[in-house]
Amino acid sequence: MSRNALKIVTIGGGSSYTPELIEGYIKRQDQLPIKEIWLVDIEAGKEKLEIVGAMAKRMVAAAGLDWEVHLTLDRREALKDADYVSTQFRVGLLDARIKDERVPLSHGVLGQETNGAGGMFKAFRTIPVILGIIKDMEEMCPNAWLVNFTNPAGMVTEAAIKHGGWKKTAGLCNVPIGHSKQAAEKLGVPEEELFIKYAGINHFHWHRVWDKEGNERTDELIDLIYGPQEEADSHLKNIHSAPFHYEQIKDLGMLPCGYHRYYYIEDEMLAHSVEEFEKGETRAQVVKATEARLFELYKDPKLDYKPKELEQRGGTHYSDAACELIASIQNDKRTDMVVSTENNGTIVDLPYDCVVEVSGPVTSHGPEPYNWGSFPPAARGLIQGMKGMEETTIRAAITGDYGAALQAFTINPLVPGGTMAKTLLDELLLAHEAHLPQFAESIKRIKETQPETVEYVEELMKSN
Amino acid sequence: MSRNALKIVTIGGGSSYTPELIEGYIKRQDQLPIKEIWLVDIEAGKEKLEIVGAMAKRMVAAAGLDWEVHLTLDRREALKDADYVSTQFRVGLLDARIKDERVPLSHGVLGQETNGAGGMFKAFRTIPVILGIIKDMEEMCPNAWLVNFTNPAGMVTEAAIKHGGWKKTAGLCNVPIGHSKQAAEKLGVPEEELFIKYAGINHFHWHRVWDKEGNERTDELIDLIYGPQEEADSHLKNIHSAPFHYEQIKDLGMLPCGYHRYYYIEDEMLAHSVEEFEKGETRAQVVKATEARLFELYKDPKLDYKPKELEQRGGTHYSDAACELIASIQNDKRTDMVVSTENNGTIVDLPYDCVVEVSGPVTSHGPEPYNWGSFPPAARGLIQGMKGMEETTIRAAITGDYGAALQAFTINPLVPGGTMAKTLLDELLLAHEAHLPQFAESIKRIKETQPETVEYVEELMKSN
Amino acid sequence: MSRNALKIVTIGGGSSYTPELIEGYIKRQDQLPIKEIWLVDIEAGKEKLEIVGAMAKRMVAAAGLDWEVHLTLDRREALKDADYVSTQFRVGLLDARIKDERVPLSHGVLGQETNGAGGMFKAFRTIPVILGIIKDMEEMCPNAWLVNFTNPAGMVTEAAIKHGGWKKTAGLCNVPIGHSKQAAEKLGVPEEELFIKYAGINHFHWHRVWDKEGNERTDELIDLIYGPQEEADSHLKNIHSAPFHYEQIKDLGMLPCGYHRYYYIEDEMLAHSVEEFEKGETRAQVVKATEARLFELYKDPKLDYKPKELEQRGGTHYSDAACELIASIQNDKRTDMVVSTENNGTIVDLPYDCVVEVSGPVTSHGPEPYNWGSFPPAARGLIQGMKGMEETTIRAAITGDYGAALQAFTINPLVPGGTMAKTLLDELLLAHEAHLPQFAESIKRIKETQPETVEYVEELMKSN
Amino acid sequence: MSRNALKIVTIGGGSSYTPELIEGYIKRQDQLPIKEIWLVDIEAGKEKLEIVGAMAKRMVAAAGLDWEVHLTLDRREALKDADYVSTQFRVGLLDARIKDERVPLSHGVLGQETNGAGGMFKAFRTIPVILGIIKDMEEMCPNAWLVNFTNPAGMVTEAAIKHGGWKKTAGLCNVPIGHSKQAAEKLGVPEEELFIKYAGINHFHWHRVWDKEGNERTDELIDLIYGPQEEADSHLKNIHSAPFHYEQIKDLGMLPCGYHRYYYIEDEMLAHSVEEFEKGETRAQVVKATEARLFELYKDPKLDYKPKELEQRGGTHYSDAACELIASIQNDKRTDMVVSTENNGTIVDLPYDCVVEVSGPVTSHGPEPYNWGSFPPAARGLIQGMKGMEETTIRAAITGDYGAALQAFTINPLVPGGTMAKTLLDELLLAHEAHLPQFAESIKRIKETQPETVEYVEELMKSN
Repeated sequence: MSRNALKIVTIGGGSSYTPELIEGYIKRQDQLPIKEIWLVDIEAGKEKLEIVGAMAKRMVAAAGLDWEVHLTLDRREALKDADYVSTQFRVGLLDARIKDERVPLSHGVLGQETNGAGGMFKAFRTIPVILGIIKDMEEMCPNAWLVNFTNPAGMVTEAAIKHGGWKKTAGLCNVPIGHSKQAAEKLGVPEEELFIKYAGINHFHWHRVWDKEGNERTDELIDLIYGPQEEADSHLKNIHSAPFHYEQIKDLGMLPCGYHRYYYIEDEMLAHSVEEFEKGETRAQVVKATEARLFELYKDPKLDYKPKELEQRGGTHYSDAACELIASIQNDKRTDMVVSTENNGTIVDLPYDCVVEVSGPVTSHGPEPYNWGSFPPAARGLIQGMKGMEETTIRAAITGDYGAALQAFTINPLVPGGTMAKTLLDELLLAHEAHLPQFAESIKRIKETQPETVEYVEELMKSN
Repeated sequence: MSRNALKIVTIGGGSSYTPELIEGYIKRQDQLPIKEIWLVDIEAGKEKLEIVGAMAKRMVAAAGLDWEVHLTLDRREALKDADYVSTQFRVGLLDARIKDERVPLSHGVLGQETNGAGGMFKAFRTIPVILGIIKDMEEMCPNAWLVNFTNPAGMVTEAAIKHGGWKKTAGLCNVPIGHSKQAAEKLGVPEEELFIKYAGINHFHWHRVWDKEGNERTDELIDLIYGPQEEADSHLKNIHSAPFHYEQIKDLGMLPCGYHRYYYIEDEMLAHSVEEFEKGETRAQVVKATEARLFELYKDPKLDYKPKELEQRGGTHYSDAACELIASIQNDKRTDMVVSTENNGTIVDLPYDCVVEVSGPVTSHGPEPYNWGSFPPAARGLIQGMKGMEETTIRAAITGDYGAALQAFTINPLVPGGTMAKTLLDELLLAHEAHLPQFAESIKRIKETQPETVEYVEELMKSN
Repeated sequence: MSRNALKIVTIGGGSSYTPELIEGYIKRQDQLPIKEIWLVDIEAGKEKLEIVGAMAKRMVAAAGLDWEVHLTLDRREALKDADYVSTQFRVGLLDARIKDERVPLSHGVLGQETNGAGGMFKAFRTIPVILGIIKDMEEMCPNAWLVNFTNPAGMVTEAAIKHGGWKKTAGLCNVPIGHSKQAAEKLGVPEEELFIKYAGINHFHWHRVWDKEGNERTDELIDLIYGPQEEADSHLKNIHSAPFHYEQIKDLGMLPCGYHRYYYIEDEMLAHSVEEFEKGETRAQVVKATEARLFELYKDPKLDYKPKELEQRGGTHYSDAACELIASIQNDKRTDMVVSTENNGTIVDLPYDCVVEVSGPVTSHGPEPYNWGSFPPAARGLIQGMKGMEETTIRAAITGDYGAALQAFTINPLVPGGTMAKTLLDELLLAHEAHLPQFAESIKRIKETQPETVEYVEELMKSN
Repeated sequence: MSRNALKIVTIGGGSSYTPELIEGYIKRQDQLPIKEIWLVDIEAGKEKLEIVGAMAKRMVAAAGLDWEVHLTLDRREALKDADYVSTQFRVGLLDARIKDERVPLSHGVLGQETNGAGGMFKAFRTIPVILGIIKDMEEMCPNAWLVNFTNPAGMVTEAAIKHGGWKKTAGLCNVPIGHSKQAAEKLGVPEEELFIKYAGINHFHWHRVWDKEGNERTDELIDLIYGPQEEADSHLKNIHSAPFHYEQIKDLGMLPCGYHRYYYIEDEMLAHSVEEFEKGETRAQVVKATEARLFELYKDPKLDYKPKELEQRGGTHYSDAACELIASIQNDKRTDMVVSTENNGTIVDLPYDCVVEVSGPVTSHGPEPYNWGSFPPAARGLIQGMKGMEETTIRAAITGDYGAALQAFTINPLVPGGTMAKTLLDELLLAHEAHLPQFAESIKRIKETQPETVEYVEELMKSN
C-alpha cells in the first residue's frame, strides 16, 4: 500500500473521543492523503461504535471528502495494510474505571486512574491487549506506526516498545499541551515564540521555558502560576486544581505537571477525592454521565461536527495531538511535540531501555527527542521511584504474578504499604476478574480463602 | 603521635552507650595499644559525662589497664593528635527525639527518628555540628579516622565525606549485625560459615546469603523468616516487629532490613506508633526512661562492667562494631563489616559520590567494599527515591533553606505530601528552634505569621 | 547594550578568513542588527589586520551598510559590552603549524594539526590564551556568546566551558557542512529534505541520514560513497582523500567523517604526508603560500568582495557557519547545526561534563542537541580513547605538567608510544618555546640536558 | 556426584603445563578430595597427552595418592559429572602461534599473541571451541565450574560468560602474581602484609598497593621499579623488559602491567620483536623449542616431579593459580585472587555485562570482586578502546563476518589502520584456514581473487 492513499485504523473506535480525531484529520486534509479510516471495536462496544461511526461518516461527508469510513469488530481485517494505527480503547469500559477509583476510595485511598492503584489495574487489563494487537500488526501491517493514547500511556507504550518490540510506537498525552498554552498565556507571549522542554514520564513530567530573547522564564512562571498571591488554577479537567506549595515548587526550579499534585499535595487531593466518592461523584462516575450525554448528542443525525460538550470530557487535545503526530510523520513536518518514546539516554537518570515522555521534533522516522540530561536530586529520586513502580507493574501485567503485583502496590507512593496494599490488590483483582485472565489462579485462591473480601467487593459494586 | 600509643576520642562521651564502647576496647586490649581515651561532651551533658566517665575509669581499672580516661568539655583539646574519633552525640538530647516523634504522631504521621520526619530534623540538627567537628579535626588531628554512629548515620556520614571532605570517615550501624546473627540461627549454621552481602543505605539495605558449599540461601531464608507459617519476629529493639507480606518479600528475592517495615508495611507500623503515642510511650519516651534507669545504675561506685540492662537500650552492638572497626583499621584485620562509605560505583544505581551502606573487609586504609552492581527495578526505584530525599535533606541542613526543607518533607515517603508536610515542617522548626540556627530566619517568620502553629507546639510540648 | 545594536568582536581578526565572515554578516543583514564589528589582533598580526580590516570596511561599504568596522590591538577595549565574540586566532601563526607538522614528519610520524602531535601542541598554545580571553570577558562582556572556531575546536571549546566556566560557548567546524552537502548530492535529494544526525567529537564524528519518507539511507550512502566501485573522493581541502576500506565502513553502519582517515587508514595518510613533507609541501606550507597570495589580493583597494581563491584555503564554510550560528541565536531561528557543546548525556558513552560535537537546533539560548545515546562497541571504544587523550591534553595545557604531556602523547593513537612519543614531545616543546610559558621549566631542562635535541630542532627549522 | 569425591577435567591435558597443574593439586591434597583427574586432548595432541599423562600418573603415585588419572580423546566422556573443568588448549598448537607472530612481523608489525593481531586470531580460533565445550558441559556437567586459562583469557572468558551463558566461569592469568611478588620484594615487606588491588582487563590492568599501616605505596613503587635510576626489569618471561618512561607512569599514578609495554612503549617492543623475527627467534619459536625439550624430559620414566625447566616456559604460576582457585571455591577459602569475571559495575567505565580482570576473594560461590570505580581519563580512554576492540573481535569470532574482523583489526592500537590491517587480516585468514571454519567463505574469496596473498603466505610459511 502506498503512503499516498493512507489507511488509518483506530482501535477503540467507538470511543466518545472519535469525533475529535475525525475533526483533526479533516483539519489536516491537505497533509493527510487519506483513503480509508477504520474504526474497530469489540462486541461490547458495538452500539457505541455504530453511533459514533455514523457521526464520523457525517463529518467526513460534511467536509466534502471522499474518505471511506469503515466500522468493524474484526481487528485483523482492519489492520490489514494499515499505515497508522491509533489506540484509544478502554478494557472494561468506564465501569472498570469506576471500580479502579471506588475500591481504593472506599478505604480512603486514591484510585488515580493513571499511576495510582487504579492506573496499575488499568495497566494489568490493557497491556496484554496491546501486546495482542502488536502480534496482529506483525502479521497484517508490519510497517505501520502505532500511536497510543490509551492510559496509562507511559506503561502501555513501554510494554509495546520494550516487550512487544514494536519500535514504531509513540505515546501521546494532552497534559503538556495545556501547560504550554498556560505558559504562553501567563507570559503574554505567543506560544510559538517560546521554547518549552519537557522531561519525565507520562503524567509525571516537568518542563522549563525559554523566550525568544534566550532568557529562561521558568522561575518567573513559577511565580506567576504558583506564587503565594496566585489563586489555584489548572487547565486540566481531569484533576482537582488544589494549589501546590509555592516554596517547594520554587526550590524545584522546574514547572510541575498537573498530575504532580497527587505526589506533592497528596493530602489535599485525597481529601477532595474522598469527598467526591462520598457524593457518588468520582471522576469516573462524572465522566460516565458526560459520556452518556455525548452519545445522546452523537445520535442526532444532523450533528456533523464535534460538539462543544466533548471538551468537558477531560481528554481534550489528545486526539488532535494524535492527528498532528500522524501528519508530522507523514510529511516530515518536524513539529515539536511531547511524546512517550524510548529513552536511549535522553534522561540519564532512567534506564536506557525504558520509555520516557520528552520533547522534540517528530520527523518522518519518528520522534527525535532533545537531550535532557539529569534531574536535580529531589526530582531525580521521585521519578526513579516511579519508574521502578512502572517496570514492576508491567512485569506483573505480563506474567500475572501475584507477588509482582503486590510489589508494585507496595512501592507505589500513592498506595499505603502493608495490609492496605494487599487489601486493595485483592479487592481489585476480584472486581476486575473478567478482564484479568493472567491472574485467574490468584483470583481463584482469593475467592476460595477470603470470603469477606468477596462480600466486600460485591457490596461495594452494588452501591455503584 | 605514634600509632603505638593510641589516642581515641569520643564526641558525645556522656552517652549511655559509652560503657559498651569501653567494654569493646577492653575486649580488644591486645589489638589496641591505647594510651588515652577522651570522652568529650557539652555543658548540657556535663553531669552525664561525669557519671559515665567515672564508670569508664572503673571499668578500665578493673581490667587492670593503664589507659588514661580523660573527661572534657573542650573538644579541641580532646581532638589534639587523636588517632580515632568516634561520634555518638545527640544534639538536644533525648528530649529532641521525643519532639521528633511526638509532633508528627500528634497528626497521625510517623516520626521515625532515622529516615522519617524525625530523622530529617535529626539531620538538620546534627549535620552542622559534624561539619564543625571536621573543621576542628582538620586543624587538630588531620590524620585521624572519624567513626560515626550518630543517626541518621547515612546522611551524617555523607555530609562528613562529601561536604566536609573528610575521606577517612566510616559510618556504622548495628542493624546488619542482628540480621547476620538471625540468618545463621535460622539456617543452623555458624555465622562465620556464611557469606552475607549487604547493600543499600543506612536503615534501608537488603542482603543476600550464601553458604560455604556455594549455594545461595536467600530464598530459603525468606521462607524461614517471613514464610506464611512463621510468626512475626525481629531482633531489633528499636522497632515494632510487624510481619512483612511474604509474597512481596519473595518477589523481591533479597532479605529486607528491619527498617523496611516503615516502607513495606507502613500501615501497620503507623498504627502501632500511634498507639504508643496515645499511651505516652513513644519509643523516645521509653528510651528516655531506660536511660534514666541506666544512669542510676552507672552512679553505683561499685559497678565496673557494662550492665545487662544496656541491651534494652536498642542500639546494642553499635559500640562494639565501632571498636571492631577501629581494631580492624589499626591491625589491617580485614574484618568483613557493613559500613557507610563512599559509593564510587559500588551500587551503580546511586550517585557515584554519595554514601552507601555496603559489605567488605575493613583494611588499614579503610573499607574496601565488594562490588554490588544494580538492584532489580522494585528495589532500585525505592532506594533511588530515598537517596534523592537524603541529598535534599542534607542540602537543607547545610543551607537552612526553607524551600529545600519543604522539598525534602514533600518527597519523603513516610510523610504525606502537601499541607501535612508543611505543617509538620513548621511545627518541628518551632519545636527545635534552639538547635537550628541555620533556620533562624524561617523560624522567625513562622512565629510572626502563624500564631496557631506556635500555640499548637507549645501545647503539645507541655503534654510531654 | 541592547541586542538591537549588536557589537560583534572577532579575536584573530587579521585572519585570511575574515572576508568570509564579513560576507556572512552582510548576507544576513536582515537578521543581524549590527552596529559595530571589532577586529582584534596582536602586535605580530598588525599588518595582516590592517590589510584585511581595510578590505572588510570596503565590503561593508559596498553593501551600503552603516556598520562600524573597528581595528584594534586592545582586546579589552574590543570586548567591552560585546554581544558576540568569535575566535579564529592561531598562536604563533602558520609558522607554528609548519612546526607542528614538520617535526613529527621528519621522524615519519603524522603531525595532524587537530588531533595528532601537532593538534596537541596547538592545544598547548591555544588553551591558556582562550582562558585569558574568558577572564577578560567575565569583566567586559559577561553576557556575550563565545563562538569558537579556533582548532583544535573540540579541546578549545571543552577548555572554555569546563575549565573557563563560560557556558555560553559554542564550537564550530566546517566538516559536517561538507558531509551534508555530499549526502544530498549522492542521493540526488535537496539537502533540506534529509534529516542528518551527527555525533562524536570535533574531527571525529559519525553521521546517519534519513529521508523525508522516513527511511534511513545511511547504508545506501556508504555504498554510494565508499563502495568498491566508487573512486576515492572527498569534499575536504584540508586532507588527502585516500579511500576507506569499504567492508570496515559497512560493518560500522555509520558514515565516517573525513578525518577518520587518520585512524581508519592511518597507513595511507601517513605515506601521503611523508611524501608531501619530502617535497617541502606539507599542508601548512601550502596553506602559508595560499595565504600569502590571499593577502596580496586583499591589498587591492578595489577588491570589495570575498575572492574565489579563499575557497582553496581549506576552512571554507567555517565563517559562514559562525554567522549562521550568531543569526540563529539572535533570532531564535533554530537552525539545525552541528556544534561542539556540553555533552550532558547526549552521548552516554562519554563523560557527562565533556564537550561533544552533535546536531540540533540552535535556539536563542544556545544549542539544544538531539539525544544520541550510545555507539556500537567499535566506534564507542575509539571515541572514548580519543576523549581520554583530549582530557589529558587539556590538563597538560593548563598545568604545563611534563608527565601529563607525555601521557597525552603516549595514548594518542596517531603517535607511536615510547621513545618516539618522548622525542616528538621534547622537540616540539623546544620548537614552540616562545608560546609555551607554562612549560618553561621543562623546556629549560631539555635545553640543559639534551643538546642533541636542541641541535636537531634548530637544523630542522632552518630547512623549512 | 558428591563434591567429596571430586572429578577434575583438563581440556588440553597434553599441554606442557600439566605437570604444574598436577603439582598444584598434590600440594593442596588436604583441600581437594580428588577422586579422578581427566586429561582430555584431541587426536593431533595424542602423543603429547600420552607422554605428559604418564608423567602425571607417576607424580600422583610418587605422592602416595590414590587419585585416578584418566587420559582420553573423548571430551564428553571426560566431562560427565565433572566438578571442575580447566581449559588450557591451543587450537592449532604452537605452530599456529608461530604464524600469529611471524605474519605480522614479516611486515614490521607486532603479532602479540594476546591482544595484537596474533591475539585476535587466537580468539578467532578459540572462541568457537570454548562455546562448543560449554554446549557439552550443559549436558554433561551442568553444575561444574569452568576455569579458563586459555589465551586471550579475557576475550575467551567474556565469550564463555556473555555469549555461552556459563556464569560459573573464571579466567586466570599469571601476570598479577608476578607483580604482587615484585611489589613485596621492592618494598621489602612480606606479600601477605600488602593490600594490592588490580583492575582492568586481561593483560591490560593496573594495580595499586597499600601496606598494613594503611599507607598507599603505589607512588613509591613507581619510583622503585620505574624510577630514572632503576634498570629495566621484568618478572615476565613472555615479554621483553624494555623500560617504561618514568614521567608517564608517574603521571598515571598506578602501576602498569608488563603487557602495557606494548602500548606505552610500542616502539621499543616492536624493534625488539622485529629483531627476534629476523633471527628466527620469535617468542613462539623459542617456546616451541623449549617445549620440545620439556617433552623429552617428560618422557623420562623416572621423572615424577615438575622439572625446573618448566619455569622457562613463560606461563609459570598459571596452573598453580588454577589449583588455588579450585581449592578456594571448594573450601570457601576466600583467597584474594585476580580473576577475569563479570564486570557488573566493578569498573564503571566499562560495559556492565563485559568481563574484567579484578581483585577479590574467591568464595565458594565464585569471585566477589572489590569495587574499583572509575579510572583517571588517560587510563580510562585506553582501556575503553581496548574493550571496544575485544567486543568486536568476539563478534567476528562468533559470526565469521569479514567486516567485523577488519573492524577489529582497524581499531586495534597495535595494528596500523588501513591497507596494512587488511593485508594482515587476509594473510592470517589464509595461514589459519584449517582452524577457521566460520570464515570459510571469506577465505575462499581471498584465494580466488588475491593470488599474490596466497603466494606470500606460502613463502613465509616455508621459511618458518
